[in-house]
Amino acid sequence: MDKNLLLKLLESIAAGRVSTAEAADRLQHLAYEDITYAHIDHHRSLRKGFPEVIFGEGKSADQISGILEKMIYQENIILVTRIDQQKADFVRSRFPKAVYHTDARMIVLELTPVPIQGRGPILIISAGTSDIPVAKEAYLTACAMGNTVHTIFDVGVSGIHRLLNHKKMIDQATVLIVVAGMEGALPSVVAGMVDRPVIAVPTSVGYGVNLGGLTALFAMLNSCSSNVAVVNIDNGFGAGYMAAMINRV
Amino acid sequence: MDKNLLLKLLESIAAGRVSTAEAADRLQHLAYEDITYAHIDHHRSLRKGFPEVIFGEGKSADQISGILEKMIYQENIILVTRIDQQKADFVRSRFPKAVYHTDARMIVLELTPVPIQGRGPILIISAGTSDIPVAKEAYLTACAMGNTVHTIFDVGVSGIHRLLNHKKMIDQATVLIVVAGMEGALPSVVAGMVDRPVIAVPTSVGYGVNLGGLTALFAMLNSCSSNVAVVNIDNGFGAGYMAAMINRV
Amino acid sequence: MDKNLLLKLLESIAAGRVSTAEAADRLQHLAYEDITYAHIDHHRSLRKGFPEVIFGEGKSADQISGILEKMIYQENIILVTRIDQQKADFVRSRFPKAVYHTDARMIVLELTPVPIQGRGPILIISAGTSDIPVAKEAYLTACAMGNTVHTIFDVGVSGIHRLLNHKKMIDQATVLIVVAGMEGALPSVVAGMVDRPVIAVPTSVGYGVNLGGLTALFAMLNSCSSNVAVVNIDNGFGAGYMAAMINRV
Amino acid sequence: MDKNLLLKLLESIAAGRVSTAEAADRLQHLAYEDITYAHIDHHRSLRKGFPEVIFGEGKSADQISGILEKMIYQENIILVTRIDQQKADFVRSRFPKAVYHTDARMIVLELTPVPIQGRGPILIISAGTSDIPVAKEAYLTACAMGNTVHTIFDVGVSGIHRLLNHKKMIDQATVLIVVAGMEGALPSVVAGMVDRPVIAVPTSVGYGVNLGGLTALFAMLNSCSSNVAVVNIDNGFGAGYMAAMINRV
Amino acid sequence: MDKNLLLKLLESIAAGRVSTAEAADRLQHLAYEDITYAHIDHHRSLRKGFPEVIFGEGKSADQISGILEKMIYQENIILVTRIDQQKADFVRSRFPKAVYHTDARMIVLELTPVPIQGRGPILIISAGTSDIPVAKEAYLTACAMGNTVHTIFDVGVSGIHRLLNHKKMIDQATVLIVVAGMEGALPSVVAGMVDRPVIAVPTSVGYGVNLGGLTALFAMLNSCSSNVAVVNIDNGFGAGYMAAMINRV
Amino acid sequence: MDKNLLLKLLESIAAGRVSTAEAADRLQHLAYEDITYAHIDHHRSLRKGFPEVIFGEGKSADQISGILEKMIYQENIILVTRIDQQKADFVRSRFPKAVYHTDARMIVLELTPVPIQGRGPILIISAGTSDIPVAKEAYLTACAMGNTVHTIFDVGVSGIHRLLNHKKMIDQATVLIVVAGMEGALPSVVAGMVDRPVIAVPTSVGYGVNLGGLTALFAMLNSCSSNVAVVNIDNGFGAGYMAAMINRV
Amino acid sequence: MDKNLLLKLLESIAAGRVSTAEAADRLQHLAYEDITYAHIDHHRSLRKGFPEVIFGEGKSADQISGILEKMIYQENIILVTRIDQQKADFVRSRFPKAVYHTDARMIVLELTPVPIQGRGPILIISAGTSDIPVAKEAYLTACAMGNTVHTIFDVGVSGIHRLLNHKKMIDQATVLIVVAGMEGALPSVVAGMVDRPVIAVPTSVGYGVNLGGLTALFAMLNSCSSNVAVVNIDNGFGAGYMAAMINRV
Amino acid sequence: MDKNLLLKLLESIAAGRVSTAEAADRLQHLAYEDITYAHIDHHRSLRKGFPEVIFGEGKSADQISGILEKMIYQENIILVTRIDQQKADFVRSRFPKAVYHTDARMIVLELTPVPIQGRGPILIISAGTSDIPVAKEAYLTACAMGNTVHTIFDVGVSGIHRLLNHKKMIDQATVLIVVAGMEGALPSVVAGMVDRPVIAVPTSVGYGVNLGGLTALFAMLNSCSSNVAVVNIDNGFGAGYMAAMINRV
Repeated sequence: MDKNLLLKLLESIAAGRVSTAEAADRLQHLAYEDITYAHIDHHRSLRKGFPEVIFGEGKSADQISGILEKMIYQENIILVTRIDQQKADFVRSRFPKAVYHTDARMIVLELTPVPIQGRGPILIISAGTSDIPVAKEAYLTACAMGNTVHTIFDVGVSGIHRLLNHKKMIDQATVLIVVAGMEGALPSVVAGMVDRPVIAVPTSVGYGVNLGGLTALFAMLNSCSSNVAVVNIDNGFGAGYMAAMINRV
Repeated sequence: MDKNLLLKLLESIAAGRVSTAEAADRLQHLAYEDITYAHIDHHRSLRKGFPEVIFGEGKSADQISGILEKMIYQENIILVTRIDQQKADFVRSRFPKAVYHTDARMIVLELTPVPIQGRGPILIISAGTSDIPVAKEAYLTACAMGNTVHTIFDVGVSGIHRLLNHKKMIDQATVLIVVAGMEGALPSVVAGMVDRPVIAVPTSVGYGVNLGGLTALFAMLNSCSSNVAVVNIDNGFGAGYMAAMINRV
Repeated sequence: MDKNLLLKLLESIAAGRVSTAEAADRLQHLAYEDITYAHIDHHRSLRKGFPEVIFGEGKSADQISGILEKMIYQENIILVTRIDQQKADFVRSRFPKAVYHTDARMIVLELTPVPIQGRGPILIISAGTSDIPVAKEAYLTACAMGNTVHTIFDVGVSGIHRLLNHKKMIDQATVLIVVAGMEGALPSVVAGMVDRPVIAVPTSVGYGVNLGGLTALFAMLNSCSSNVAVVNIDNGFGAGYMAAMINRV
Repeated sequence: MDKNLLLKLLESIAAGRVSTAEAADRLQHLAYEDITYAHIDHHRSLRKGFPEVIFGEGKSADQISGILEKMIYQENIILVTRIDQQKADFVRSRFPKAVYHTDARMIVLELTPVPIQGRGPILIISAGTSDIPVAKEAYLTACAMGNTVHTIFDVGVSGIHRLLNHKKMIDQATVLIVVAGMEGALPSVVAGMVDRPVIAVPTSVGYGVNLGGLTALFAMLNSCSSNVAVVNIDNGFGAGYMAAMINRV
Repeated sequence: MDKNLLLKLLESIAAGRVSTAEAADRLQHLAYEDITYAHIDHHRSLRKGFPEVIFGEGKSADQISGILEKMIYQENIILVTRIDQQKADFVRSRFPKAVYHTDARMIVLELTPVPIQGRGPILIISAGTSDIPVAKEAYLTACAMGNTVHTIFDVGVSGIHRLLNHKKMIDQATVLIVVAGMEGALPSVVAGMVDRPVIAVPTSVGYGVNLGGLTALFAMLNSCSSNVAVVNIDNGFGAGYMAAMINRV
Repeated sequence: MDKNLLLKLLESIAAGRVSTAEAADRLQHLAYEDITYAHIDHHRSLRKGFPEVIFGEGKSADQISGILEKMIYQENIILVTRIDQQKADFVRSRFPKAVYHTDARMIVLELTPVPIQGRGPILIISAGTSDIPVAKEAYLTACAMGNTVHTIFDVGVSGIHRLLNHKKMIDQATVLIVVAGMEGALPSVVAGMVDRPVIAVPTSVGYGVNLGGLTALFAMLNSCSSNVAVVNIDNGFGAGYMAAMINRV
Repeated sequence: MDKNLLLKLLESIAAGRVSTAEAADRLQHLAYEDITYAHIDHHRSLRKGFPEVIFGEGKSADQISGILEKMIYQENIILVTRIDQQKADFVRSRFPKAVYHTDARMIVLELTPVPIQGRGPILIISAGTSDIPVAKEAYLTACAMGNTVHTIFDVGVSGIHRLLNHKKMIDQATVLIVVAGMEGALPSVVAGMVDRPVIAVPTSVGYGVNLGGLTALFAMLNSCSSNVAVVNIDNGFGAGYMAAMINRV
Repeated sequence: MDKNLLLKLLESIAAGRVSTAEAADRLQHLAYEDITYAHIDHHRSLRKGFPEVIFGEGKSADQISGILEKMIYQENIILVTRIDQQKADFVRSRFPKAVYHTDARMIVLELTPVPIQGRGPILIISAGTSDIPVAKEAYLTACAMGNTVHTIFDVGVSGIHRLLNHKKMIDQATVLIVVAGMEGALPSVVAGMVDRPVIAVPTSVGYGVNLGGLTALFAMLNSCSSNVAVVNIDNGFGAGYMAAMINRV
C-alpha cells in the first residue's frame, strides 16, 4: 500500500471522516490478498518503497486486469512489464489511465505525478539502435520511481569518439545504466571514465555466438572495470529499478 | 595519484618547498607509467576516487612488487587481490606495511588510515561457512574504501529463522552484499526484506550441477526481487568496490 | 489391466458367467498389445498400480484415440498429458467421458471415482502465477491416483511472509510438491520448514539466463535442504505421480 | 536438539534433578548458536527430525571440530560428509566415538544406537564398481536415520539378467535408491519393475561426454518411468536422506 | 554413376550400339557436374556403391529438381531426405516415379527394383511412438540400399518385458539400429543382449533436459555396452546407410 | 564521409563554387550525426576507408530509411545487411538506386561504380548448396569494397576430388574465404593447400549437434592449418569485409 | 565363459574325465558371480563372443586383481583398460602373463593365441602424433578379438597428400577406424574415399575450444559422409570392439 | 624443404658439386617422411612458405627431438610451441642452436637470420600483464616469419587514455594482433580506430564466467567492428602466423 495513501487513511480515521469498520475493510489485505491465481503483496510498497510490478509474460489479459483491480485502490503508480499490444489494449479498455509504451512493451498507470526523489540524474547509454527497447524499459521504470533520467542512444565502441563527445552528461550522472548486446564492451569503457556505479544490461541483440545475450552478459560480468554490476539479459526494468534504489541511498 | 597527495604536492610548489624540477619529475607519469610488463594507471585515483587494484593471479611476485614500487609514492592505500601465501611473503619482505589476509588471499597496504566516507553501514551476509573467504574479500575492500562494514555469516535459506533474527542489522544497512553458493537463493530472500540495493555474489562452493558457481550466478540474475544486481563468481572484491561506490552516491 | 477389473473377470469365470473362450480373448493381451505404432503395456496397472499414461506430444489425435480404444476395456482411469485443444476436441468427440483441462493441457478419463489411498494430504505450492499450469498438471495427476490434494499458488520468496502465513497447511501435508521457475529458490525455503519429502518441479518460466528452466532445475538440485528430490523441467505429471507413489509407501 | 534429549532435560527439570538456571543455559541456543564462522541450527532436529549435517568440503578440520563441539551436547547422532582422511584423523583424535568410512569419505558419530523407524527396507542398487562410494554414502545416511538398508552392487544394464535375478529383494523394498554413472539408464529399468518411489543418483563416473555426471543426471530426469525423482550428481547423502524421509511418511 | 548403367554403356560402345561421341557426352561429367548451385558428385556411386543423397533442408524445390534432372540419367535409385510435403509435391509433379513418405519426410525415386545385397536381416527397434518418423527414415534408406529390414516399434525400457518377448527376431539380425529419445537407454539394453553391431540413433523427442536430443546422444555415447556406435540426433538416414554398409562387409 | 566527396567539397570551397556557410552546414556532422535512435558515424569512411554498414535486423524500415537519408549525401556506396524482403521493398520505394539481393538478404546502394583496389582476386569457396546465401553476402561485400571476386560453390570434403579440380583458381587467389556448415572441415583442407590467408565462415546449416553452427565454428578455430582466422556464424559480411581489408594491406 | 573352454569341460564330463560334482562347481557361476564389489558377468563371452572387459579407472589394484582371479579360470583372453603404471605393476606381479602397454594404458592377458576371425584387415588411421595412445587402444582391442590390423599414424588434413599416398592400404580394409582430435575432420575425408564402414574416434587432444574433445566429437557426428558412426571421446577400446564386431557380420 | 636450400641443392647438382645419388637420397622424402609416430610434411615449406611447426603438447621430448633431427637438414628455421622447461632442456642439450623462451613456452631454432618479408610493421597489443605470454608467442612467430614487430602491453579498456596515447604506432601498423582475456573488449576498440586487418586472440586469463577464455572468444566474434577475425583461445602462434601471411599478400 502506498505510504501516502496509508497516512491519509489513518488521518481520516483519526479525524472521524472514515469509520473504523470501513478502514478495517480497507486494511484487511494489508499483508497480501489471495485471488486464487495470485497472492498480491500489498505490503510491498510499505516495505520496499514501490509496489509489486506485474510481469505480463505468461499471464492472461484477464489475470493482469484482475490484479490491477485489487492494486488500484492501494497504490499511486503501477507498472506492467513484458505485455504485448493485444493484452495492453484489453487492459487499457478497462483502465483508461493506463499508458502503453510500444517499444518498451510496458504499461505505466500513474494516478498522481511521482515527485523526484533521486540524488541526481540517472544516465542511460545504449550501444546500438536495436538495444533501444531495453533501454526504454529502464527509462520508464526509473522515471516512475521518481528520478530525472537522461539518455544517449547508439554510441557503440567501434566509434568511440561518439561516446567521448558526451563526456559532460556522463560526468553529471549519479548512477549510470549501460545497455549493450553483441560483445557487451560498452559498460567497461564507460565505467572506466567515471567514479559512479554502473548497472550493465546485456541484450539479446546479435546472432551466432551472441548466444541470445549470454556473451554480452558474461563479458559484462568479466569487466575489467570494478564499478559495474549486472542484471539479467534484456532486463531493462531491473536495471531501472536498481538504479532508482541506488539513487536514494 | 591520491588526490590529497596531489594537493599537498601542489601546495609545496606554491610554498617553494618543492622545486618545479622535482615536481615535474614526480608528475611526469600522472597519466600512466609504462614499465614494460604493465601500464600503471596513476591517473585512476584522481579519475575514479580509488587507485588501480593489482590482480595477483597470473603475475609473478616480482611483477607485483615492481608495480607496487611505482604506486607507493603516489597512493595512500593499495590492494592486491588473489595472491597466494608464497607470493605474499615475498611482497611483505619488501613492503613491511603490507598486511596479508590468508582467508581472503589479499594484501592491504595502507599508509595512513582511510576516513569513513560512506552514507551508512554496508552489511555483508553469507550463506555458508565455505563462502566466508569471498565475503572477507568484499569486507576488506569496502573497509579500504572508507566504509563501516558489518557481517553476518552462515545464514542459509534452509533455516530461515537464523536470518530473520538479524532483522535489525539488516534494516540499518544502506547497501547490502549477499554471498552464496549452491542454489544461490539467499539474495532473493534478503532483497525481499529491504528497500536498499543488494549486490549478489555467487560463489563456486558446491559440487555437481553447481557448475563452478554458474548455477548460483544464474539464479541470482533471475531473482524475483528487483533490487538485486550481480557480480562475477567469487568476485568479493568487485562487490565490495561496487557497494562502496553506491554508498557515496 | 486394472486389478479390480481383473478380479471381477476371474470371479465371472469361476461363477460360469463368462466362458473361458471369452476370457482368453480378453486376457490374451495381458502382457502388452502391439498395434503397429504402439506396444500398449496392459500389464502396467498390475505391476505398477497405475496404467500407462499417454504422452500426447508427437502423437496424432488418431494415434491417441487408437491407444485409448485398446485401454478403455482394461482400465478404470486413463490420463493423456501434453495434448493441445484441437487434438483433445477430437478425442473427446470419441470418448465423451474424457474431460479436458485447458491450463494443464491434460485429459482425464475416469470411469468410476478413484478412492482415496494416500496416507495424508499432498500439498502443491507454486511460486508465481505463470507456474500454475505445471502445478495443475501435478494436481490432476495426484488426484487421479487417489489422493487429497491442497494448493497454494503465487507465494514466491521475494515476499516470504505470504508463505509463512500458510504454515498450518504446510505442517499437515505428508508430501509436498513445490513448483517454481526463475531462480527456483522456493523448494529450499519450504523444505527447510518441514520434516517431509519435497518434490521440486522447475518450470521454464522466465527469460534470459533462466535458460528454459535449466537454472531453476540446477538450483533445486543444489538445494541446501536435504529433503528435496527433483523431476524434469515442467514435469508436473511426474511430480504428481512420484508424490502419489510416496504417499502410499 | 535431539527430541529425546530435550524430553529428558524437561523431565529432569520437572523432577528437580536439574536447576532452571542450568537448563536455561543449555537451552539458550535452542534456535541456533553463532560461533563466528557458523550459525549452528540446533533447532533443526526438532523441526526436521534429524540434526544439521556438516558438509566437510571447504571447511577446515578446526572448523569442523568447533561445530561438533557445540552439537555433541545436543544431538544423538552427527554426520560429516565429504571429509578427507587427513581432516578425519584430526577430528577422530578429538572425538573418539567418531567412525570414519574411507570409501564414503564420511564420519558417523553415534552416541546411542538409532532405533529402526522406516516402514520397510530401503534397497540401494548401483550400476558399477566405481559407483560404490556414492552408494555407500547413501547407505550410511539411511542407516543413521533409522532404516534397514539392503544393497546390490554392480548390476549395470549391459547384462540385465544380473538385475532380474535379484527380483525378490527388489519387490520387498519400500523405497529404492539407484546409483549410476555413464549413461544413467539403470533407474529407468528398475523403476519400470516396481510400484515404489525410486530416488536416482547420477555419479561422475565415466569420461568424455559423461560430462562429469551431467549426462547421467539428464538421462535420469528424462526417465520414461514416472516413479523417479533425482538428486545432485554424486549426492549419495541426499539420496539416503530423502529415502529415509519417504520411508516414514 | 550406377555401376550397372556404366557397364551397359560400355558394352553398347563395344557393340557399336552407341557412338563414341554420344558416349563421351554422357561420360564427360563422370567426376562431377557443376550446375552453379551444386557440384553433383556423379562419381560417388562408383566410388562408394551408392549415389549422392540429396539433403532437402535449405534447398528450394527448384534446386532439388535441378539436381534430380542431372542424376536421373546416371543412377538407378535416388533419395531426397528432410523434404516437406509442399516441396515434395512440386518434385513429384516433375518426377512421377518419385514416392513421398510423409512420416519420414523422404522421397524415394527407384527406377528398377534394388536386389538384396545384405548378409542378413537388419532390425530397427524404436523406444516410443514419437520416435517412429526417425526409425522410418532408417528403414527406407536400408531398404533402398538392398537389405531385408524388420522393425519393432514402441518398446521402451520402462516395460522391459515387451522387448524380451521379441528375443527371436533380435537374435536373427546381423545388424541392429536402435532409435530412442528421452534418456536414450534402449541401445545399451539391446546391445547387452546380442553379439552384433548396434547403431544407436538419438532423437529429439522429449522436453526439458532432453536438450533437443543431446541427452539421449550423450547417454548412447556413454553406453556401458561396447558394441554400440552412434550417429547424429534424428539422423535415421545415416543409421540406415551405415547399417547397410556394415551388412555387406 | 567518402574521401573523394570530401576532396571535391574542399576544392569547391577553394574555387569559390561553394560558400563557406554551405560547406559548414554540410561538414557540421563530420564526426557523427545524432538522429535520436542512431548516432551515424559519418567519420567512418575517412577513418576506416568504408562507410558504416547498416545492420538491418532489429531496425524498422523507417529507421533504416532515416539513416540512409542522412548517409546518402556523404557516401558513394552503402550496404544494408540482414534485411528481409518486406523492409527492402519499403526502402527501395524511397531509394530507387538500391538493389536488393534476395538470397543474401542484403541491399547494395551504389552511386558510382567502385574501382578495383585489391591486390589480386579474392576466392570464395562454399561446402554445400545451403551455404550459398552466406557466401553471397561475403561476395557482395567484397565486390562493394573494390575487389575482383571468384566463387566455387558446393565442394564439400566428402568428395575431395571436386575441390582438387579447381586447384588453379585456388592458387591464383590472394585471399580466400571458405564457408561451411556441418562439421566445418573445408577451411582446414583448403588452407593446407595454399600459402595465403584464409577467412573461415561457419554457417548454421545442419541439425542435431551442429548446434546452430557452433560445431563448425569450433572446428574452424581448432584448425590444424595455421593460416586460418574465423568470423562469427553466418557472418558472410564480416568475412567479405575482412578479406577486402587484407587484400589492400 | 569362453565357448571353447565350456565345450572342453562338457566333453570331459561326457568322457568321465571330470566328475559331475567338479563340473557343477565350475559351472555354478555361469550366469554371474557376486564378489561384493562386482557382479562378474561370466555369461558374457557365451552371449556376446567376448568376455567382460575391466574398466580400470575408479577401481583399486586389489579390486582389479580380485576380478581377474575369478575370470582367469573361465576365459582365454582378458583386457583391462585405463589402468595406470602403478596399478598395472601390482596386477602383473600376481598375473605374470599379463602384458602392460604403456601408451595405451592397457593390460592384455592372453592364455593361448587368439585365431583370426575377421573378414579382412581393419585399418586404423590417426590424425596426429598425440592421438596415438587412443589409436593404440583400438589396435590392441581389435587384435585381441581376432583381427589383422594395420595402422597409419599422423596424416592430418592440413597436408592431405600424406593421406592420398596410402590409398592402396585404405582400399583393402574391410572396416576403418579414424582417430582425430582438434577439428576432427579426418573421418569425413577418409569416409569420402571408401565404401566401407568408418568408426570415428574423437580425442581430447587440443586446447581452447576443442572443449576436451567435444568439438571433434560434434564435427564427426555432423560428418557430410554417411558411412560414419562415432564412439565416445578417447574411446579407442570401444572403436576396436565395434570394428571387430562389424568385421565378423 | 626450405626453398633456398632446395635451390642451392639443385645448383650443386647442376654444377657437379653433388652427385645425383646423394641428391636423390636427400630428396626422397620431399613429400613427407614417415618415422612411425609422425608423418613429417617436408613439402610444407615449399607449398606454404614456412615449415611444419611442432606442437609440443602431448609429444615426448624424444619424439620432438626425433622430428627435429629429420627437419634440421631440410629447413632454415623451426618452431616448437607449447613445450615446457623440462622437455625444452632435453631438446636444447641435443640442438644447441635452439633458444627456449620461458614466458612463451616456445623453442626457436634458427640457422641463418630470416630476412624481413612483411609489407610493414605488425603491432601486437595486449590488454593485461597476464596476457603477455600469449602475446609473446605471437611475437616470436611473426618475427620468425620475417616481420618487423612492435608491441604495446597492458592497455586495457578500463583506462582507455593509455591506448589513445599510442595512436601513432597504431596508425603505422599494416596488421594488428590484439590479445585480451576477461571481457575481450580491446579488439573492438582498436579495430574501430584503424582501417587495417585485426587478428583477435582471446586468452584464458580471468575466472568465473570467463569460462576458460570462451567469453573473450565469443565477445571478439561478436565484435561490432568488421575488420576483426579471431583465432583459438591462447593461440598466439596462430595469430602470429596469420598476421605474417596477411603481411605478404
